[in-house]
Amino acid sequence: MRSVLAGALAVAVAAVSFTAQAAVSPEDQIKLRKAGYSYMSWNMGKIKAQVIDQSVAYDQQQILAAANTLNAIANSGMGALYGPGTDRQVGSQTTRVKPEMFDNFDDVAKLSGDLSRATGELVAAAEADDQGAIRTAFAAVGQSCKGCHDKYRMD
Amino acid sequence: MRSVLAGALAVAVAAVSFTAQAAVSPEDQIKLRKAGYSYMSWNMGKIKAQVIDQSVAYDQQQILAAANTLNAIANSGMGALYGPGTDRQVGSQTTRVKPEMFDNFDDVAKLSGDLSRATGELVAAAEADDQGAIRTAFAAVGQSCKGCHDKYRMD
Repeated sequence: MRSVLAGALAVAVAAVSFTAQAAVSPEDQIKLRKAGYSYMSWNMGKIKAQVIDQSVAYDQQQILAAANTLNAIANSGMGALYGPGTDRQVGSQTTRVKPEMFDNFDDVAKLSGDLSRATGELVAAAEADDQGAIRTAFAAVGQSCKGCHDKYRMD
Repeated sequence: MRSVLAGALAVAVAAVSFTAQAAVSPEDQIKLRKAGYSYMSWNMGKIKAQVIDQSVAYDQQQILAAANTLNAIANSGMGALYGPGTDRQVGSQTTRVKPEMFDNFDDVAKLSGDLSRATGELVAAAEADDQGAIRTAFAAVGQSCKGCHDKYRMD
């Protein structure tokens, strides 16, 4: 409960700083959050190829670079890209977000915290060069992504 | 000279691992590199607002999160997103890259190394909570971006 409240507060703070920045249009907010998720997806794919599919040779430095990217984006304050008016298509920017996400920011903050923890563990596993731990952490990151998609993203 | 050679080698290695991964289509490579640069641009904007324009209150944790994101993306192996066939529009993905970039990967590797060093210094300045150093490092990152745009990006 405590962490949910802390999370809700974090979202409220993010909303305030969004208002203070105010320089990013709703259309650009949608574009930028999609850019962030696409870039995360590419980096998830690189890790998957090396430690799950094993279709590419394992390279610790590449895994660590990908993990750092996932962790940095997860902690980059994406909440600021869900400002007012971004719950539907704006201009050329379509979105698959379900409008109910905007009524559940406390839950979103909790999911966001879960993702940050998972990506932090992935970085630690990559730094330790421990392929088993990387697999476990990678699965947890994937579950965290899926948890939010299942709730708040349209098919 | 040594760093140029090291950089060229890094690009060659990136090209090899691109070939080995082979899962990202040319169209998606263009989409993903544009996503990465857009996300960097947003994070540059957040730092600019706080330490240059001072239109938003300085917040060390936000600056550090933005710096970490810039540094992680700069080190994420974007060279793999400049594979064969990505020197022009593919499908719906337009690109402003100048074709001559693909003939100058040694120079690009040097510019890429400059960017990584600059974003690393920005992270260090943010960790030190030193606004003067953040301004200096931010300017160096901006110069690094511009250096590549001037040479290899169409207006």
